[in-house]
Order: sequence, then C-alpha cells, then structure tokens
Amino acid sequence: MRTSSTIGAAMLATAILAVQVQAQATKARNVILFIGDGMGDSEITIARNYEKGANGRLNMDLLPYTGAYTTYALDESDPSRIDYVTDSAASGTGWATGVKTSNGRISTPAGSTDLTPLVTILELAQRAGLKVGNVSTAELTDATPGVLMAHVNNRACQGPADMLACSLFKKDNDGPGSIAEQAVEHDVDVLLGGGRLRFAQMITGGPLAGKTVIEQAQARGYEVIGDAAGLAAAKPGRKLLGLFNDGNMTTEWTGARAELYPGTGPQSCTEHQRERGSREPSLADMTAKAIELLQTPAGAKAGFFLQVEGASIDKQDHAENPCGQIGETIAFDRAIKVGLDSARTHPDTLIIITADLAHTSQIVEVPKPNDTLQRPGALSTLITKEGSFMTISYATRVHMQSQDHTGAQVRIAAQGPNAQRVLGVTNQTDLLTTITQAPGLKDAPKPAGNAATR
Amino acid sequence: MRTSSTIGAAMLATAILAVQVQAQATKARNVILFIGDGMGDSEITIARNYEKGANGRLNMDLLPYTGAYTTYALDESDPSRIDYVTDSAASGTGWATGVKTSNGRISTPAGSTDLTPLVTILELAQRAGLKVGNVSTAELTDATPGVLMAHVNNRACQGPADMLACSLFKKDNDGPGSIAEQAVEHDVDVLLGGGRLRFAQMITGGPLAGKTVIEQAQARGYEVIGDAAGLAAAKPGRKLLGLFNDGNMTTEWTGARAELYPGTGPQSCTEHQRERGSREPSLADMTAKAIELLQTPAGAKAGFFLQVEGASIDKQDHAENPCGQIGETIAFDRAIKVGLDSARTHPDTLIIITADLAHTSQIVEVPKPNDTLQRPGALSTLITKEGSFMTISYATRVHMQSQDHTGAQVRIAAQGPNAQRVLGVTNQTDLLTTITQAPGLKDAPKPAGNAATR
Repeated sequence: MRTSSTIGAAMLATAILAVQVQAQATKARNVILFIGDGMGDSEITIARNYEKGANGRLNMDLLPYTGAYTTYALDESDPSRIDYVTDSAASGTGWATGVKTSNGRISTPAGSTDLTPLVTILELAQRAGLKVGNVSTAELTDATPGVLMAHVNNRACQGPADMLACSLFKKDNDGPGSIAEQAVEHDVDVLLGGGRLRFAQMITGGPLAGKTVIEQAQARGYEVIGDAAGLAAAKPGRKLLGLFNDGNMTTEWTGARAELYPGTGPQSCTEHQRERGSREPSLADMTAKAIELLQTPAGAKAGFFLQVEGASIDKQDHAENPCGQIGETIAFDRAIKVGLDSARTHPDTLIIITADLAHTSQIVEVPKPNDTLQRPGALSTLITKEGSFMTISYATRVHMQSQDHTGAQVRIAAQGPNAQRVLGVTNQTDLLTTITQAPGLKDAPKPAGNAATR
Repeated sequence: MRTSSTIGAAMLATAILAVQVQAQATKARNVILFIGDGMGDSEITIARNYEKGANGRLNMDLLPYTGAYTTYALDESDPSRIDYVTDSAASGTGWATGVKTSNGRISTPAGSTDLTPLVTILELAQRAGLKVGNVSTAELTDATPGVLMAHVNNRACQGPADMLACSLFKKDNDGPGSIAEQAVEHDVDVLLGGGRLRFAQMITGGPLAGKTVIEQAQARGYEVIGDAAGLAAAKPGRKLLGLFNDGNMTTEWTGARAELYPGTGPQSCTEHQRERGSREPSLADMTAKAIELLQTPAGAKAGFFLQVEGASIDKQDHAENPCGQIGETIAFDRAIKVGLDSARTHPDTLIIITADLAHTSQIVEVPKPNDTLQRPGALSTLITKEGSFMTISYATRVHMQSQDHTGAQVRIAAQGPNAQRVLGVTNQTDLLTTITQAPGLKDAPKPAGNAATR
C-alpha cells in the first residue's frame, strides 16, 4: 500500500524546509564565483556537444542546484526604462553590487553625474576579513573583473591614459582614477589575468603622478609576475599581480571563422594553438594558484572570496569563431573542475557558476547539398568528437561585424551552503544576497528610492 | 559564534537525502505535463519582458525545482550519429517513451523498417489504471499530442488520407492506421484540440472502412464536440473528443510580422484577435475542463495523467510573428495557472513544465536611427507593457522562409512528488522515468542494444 500522499506531501514540505533552514544556518567559509562571459544555454550546449557529446556532461553540469536568472540593464538617459540587452559592465554591476545600472557603467548608478560608488561584494568580503581574488582571461581592467574593484562611469576607462569618457574620475581632478589604479588601491590579494599595457600606463595626477600602475602596485607590496613560471613559483605571504599578456590572454583553441552560406567546415578545432606558447598559464592553472594563495588555515577567522571569469567565450562569439568560443568554454570548464575538486576537501565552500549574459551563437540544421532554404547568418559546421556534424549560426549582426549580446535569461548553478537560493527564476541582482548571506556578510546598502533595485 | 561548517555541511547533506528519500517515497496521484512547443529560454524571456516586465514573473516561473535538459535527435540513416537539432516528433518520442529517435518519427525507433512501437507514458498510465488526457492548441494529430497515442514512421501521416509516407502502417495493409485512427483506438479519456479535418477523413481499410474517424470515435463511445459551449457543457462519464478548428486552433494574439532592417514597429500586440471568435475555447479553458473530467474521487485506486501543449509558440516563431508567439506563450502560461491552482487542493500532483526544443527568436539591441551596424535577420520592435522597447530578431533562415528549431538545452521546472529529479542537467528521455516513478508506474521496456538509449 502506498503512503497517503497528503501526509507524504506534508512530510516532504517539512523536509524541504529543514534543508532550507539548515542550509541557511550553515555558513560558507569560502565563495568561488565562476562567470562565463557570454555563456548562455546555447553556448553551453555547443561546447558540450563538441567536447563530450550530446549526452555527455561538462563539469559545470554536475552541480546539484540549478535555475535561471534575468540579465537586463537600465537606460542611461532614463533609468526608469529597461534595456533588455545588457553588456558585461551593467550585468556585472548587477551581480557585484545588487543594483541594476546602465550599459557601460562599472559599479556606479545609471544616470548619476557624481562619484557615487555602489558597494561591491569584494569590498564587503574585505570588510568582513575575507581574503579576495579576481581572475580573468581578459584584461584585468575589463568589465567583469572591473566591477568588483572599481567605480567609474565608463568601462573604457581602463588605464590612466584611457580617461577620456571619465574626466570626473581622473586622478588629476581628485577622482579615484582608472580601473587599473582603483584595482591596485583595493589591495586585492590575488589579481591574475591580461592587460599588462593598462598597468604600464603612467599615473597622471595625485602623489603617484609620473609612476606606472605597476610601480604603484609594487609600492603597495605587490609581487608582479608576467608568465606561467612566475605563477608556479608564487608563494603565500604577498599580494600577487599576474599580468600574462599585453591585452586579453590568447585563446586556447583556434579554427576557421564562420562564413556566409554554406559556411566553413566541416572542421575540427585546433586545440593548444601555437601562438599561445607556454608563457601564458591556463585559466585552470590561475584558479588553482588563486585558491592555494587564498586558502586560510583552519583556525583563521574567515575564508576567501574568489571570482574566476572565462572572458573570451563572449569575445569569440562576437568574432563568429566557433572553435575559439568552444575552446574558451572548455578552458573555463576545466577551471571549474579545479574549484569543485577544492570543495571536496573544503565542503564549506559555496560554488556558483553562471554567465553575465546570453549571446549570438545558435545550433541550427546542417546545410544540405542543393539546399533551397538559405541562411542569413555566418555559418560553420563542426565535426564533434562523437563524430557527428553540428552547424553554428551567427546572425545578430551582418557578417564580419561584431555579433551582439542577446537578452535571454541564463543558467545559474550552485553547490554548498546557500546554494538552494539559485533555484527557480531570480534576478541577477539576487546573486549578491546569495553570496553575502553565505559567509554571513552584511548586505550592501542600496541607494534609497533608486529605480535600479526593480 | 557560527556553527562548525563541516558539521553543518554534513547535516545539510543528511537533510537533502531526507528530502530525496521522502520525495521518492511519496507517490504522485496525478501528473500534469505542460509542453511549450518551441519555448526555449529566449521565448520565455520575450514573453515575460512583454507581459510582466523584465523583473516580473510568469506562472511558469514560480515552480520550486528547475533545471535544463538536452533535446537532440538521432540520424535516421545512421542512428549511431547525432542530429543536434530535433523536431517535435523525435523530441516528443524522447520524453514520451524514454527512447531517442530521428526527426519525423512518432514513437517508433530510428532506422526501423517494421511496425515496432515504443511504449508511451500514456499507455503505461492506462495500464496502471490512471485516467488519461491529451490537450493541444495544434491539431490533435500533430507531433506532440501524437507521440503519446500513436506509433508511425512519419509525422505527416495524420489522417487516413495522409498515409503516403507510411504505407506499412496503413489499415489497408493490416497496419495500425493513421495518428487520428490510433488516437481514437487508444480510448484516451479526454482529447481536446484542433484537427477536425483529419478526423473527418474516411478510413480506408479494416472493418471500419468507409466510416470517418469521427464516426469511429462515436462508435467507441466518445462524445464529440466542436465549440466552447460544448466544452462547457461536457460532463464526466463519457470519453470526450473536442475538435475546435479544422486545422490548428487560432492564435490568441496578432501583430505585424517581422521584416528586414530596421524591422516592424515599435508595435503593441493586438490581444483577443477577432478571427478567433468565441467558438474556440482557450487553452486554459481546455485544461480546466480536462482536469475536471479526469479528476478521480478520493477513494479511487488511481489518479490521472494529462498532457497540455502550447503548440503555436513554435508555429509563430517559425512564422517570424513576435505577437503571435508571445500571445501563445501567455495563453500557455494561463493554462499553467489552472494546473497550479488545481494542485493547491490536490498536492499529490506532479506538475512539470518544459519545452520540446529551443527556437529562433532572440532579443537583440534596438535599432537606432542611422545605425551603421545592420542586421541580417527579420526584426520587430515591441513596446512592452512596462513601457520600454524590445527588439526581436529571426535569423536562422532567410526572411519569409520558415525559421528553424535550434539545438540549445531548454528549461524544465517541476513541483510535487519526484519534482527534484529535474534539477541539474538531464536528458529529455529522463522525463519518462521522472513521470513513471511518480505515480509508481513501471518503466517502459527499452529495445535491447538500441543506440537510441544513449
């Protein structure tokens, strides 16, 4: 005889409540946030199909709690209006500060004409005594790493020589300076990524005028390294700034760019591309070193907060390059494995994997010989590792232009204390609360009456 | 002082296990499966943005358990190869039978040249004594309703006069007949949708040769109705066949089709379009009546299984019609509310909401005056109800051709007993197990050694 289902349902509800209460009572010691830039559900499926097969599983697929979140931005000229297609700056400000803003802004409110900063999760973590790290395959001054450790009205203002759109924030005008300068002044314990030329720029105002940002970092006690060997040798005890490329780090894979109908291919991607060389560490290597350096002893008061960005999924999607895009997704997934492995011995770690926005690439029918139904986009057909053909279409912009972000909700997955908060449909800004609750940080104060909190 | 996190994590794991064990021990009495045809994450976001606002919530957003599932098909000529873009027939066969097949097939195995049927969830439910219902806004012989109650090698074989591609299955050849004939012979308790002209066709072989499928239904004890008044008047006690349109049911909303750059609009959709008239019930009305007729008394041995399809989300996406697509998504969402309301008084109901496949439409940047970055696809800009502009792009096929399905994983959400099985990333075929476990049905036997189970 089966259990009375009404009693069963009540018991189930009680048990779920017990999990939720317990999960909320359990504090995370560490938080690792993985951001796949431009990694919508389509980009995840493309990488899975290619590398693992349609019924294979990526590391990012293995987390127990899963949901979707919304990624929209606000209109800069009228923040009561919605911009349904976000960029990484507005999106990152959303998850990093809990407040919606307009495209291009780095942790400052939409429409603001002053220096108002929005408090970030990295700042809250530092106040609570956590060690903090910020890792990206992009320039460290790019939008996603930038939103955690800088406040400026325009994402273009990456180094002291890039301040054309941000005069109020310039050091010459007693402002907080470029993203690079602010990053260093935030004393982030571990900073690993690209963007060497931003940090090599000369500071233009204040007491450090005439010095480079790298010199500023060294003066503040940073060890500054430039290659994989330096990363391998880095030891705990000093703040670390790793700059592994003049610009964005080199992509892991390469292959033919998509072309107009019938498109390129069938092609297999070239992995471990030669131009990358051995001087640039992988995202997995950077993640492993960051965790090693940030890990605090069992008796220590607090753990760490680490952000790891797979940045060039987005950039290769913009560039209509399916192999580049897939290679970066797989590199990101390998970094995720490092995080999951670390959580096995440190189960008090909240791990969150998500994207900042959805992107252009779509899996479409394979073009057939004498196909009368032609396609408007740029196409490439790949031979997946399980031996089948997969065609990718890029069609939000005319071929050879930079393809666009799209506005679809994206996936969020989590494990560890507070992970259940990603279930269902949430707003990207809810991520701040999920993270701050986990190690028991205080929520960021929100600007009063700001439409941005909608 | 905070709880020791290691002990906390262990307690959490125990509590999660308790939920899972409990959820598995609790049997669902009823199962309602909502299939949004072509309702990928992009289509959900488009409808939410338009109707509720970017931070609003649809009814389908409210379920507690959420995940993603993969939707690929097999290649008909070589079922060891993958077709990464499924159609509704292969997709439906996947969730209805637990076995992957090739595009176009209705619950028969890829590459088979005989009459082998794949046992469906509806057939399993009937064997276990559950009442069963099948509701769609498409023709009842269309792929999604078809996979539950028919087995045929080609989805085109909807009525006895449509059997060109399915000669082996023809009644004249001692086959089981068209989808319409097989549907009636399955004695499904409630059948509501479009497709009257399929059922008005003449049976061409066997003892009923010369009769229409409608007459066949009446001979088997069906009450046959044709409009909303008939639906409202229907009472329990007889099987019900409701055919509310000659073909697919009329869409709820209408508006301008997308056009080449800069596209149509800005437009607001026309709701309650005039052509629909009052003779066609809404999907919500059909769902409410189906639940009313299928609901069994508290003392009865078994409950019911009901499938409800929002079919024309897909069809309007194919047709580059954003208002049609949104209106059908909203109509589907209202039907979901009927299901959720019913589960309040019947908590032993497993409700699952998902899609069969992802589709073309994408939310892209709003075209600006003098925009130099042009678009290859068909565009339409909508004025959402929160007063902002949202531009939709259709670009998997050249404008005015039927737009394509896409291969991205899609969302699945659930509540009630066994709902936790949708967490994470699953295969569309796992849905069969989720459903059969819930009311304690036996799993369908799988063809031995079939690549389809991969």
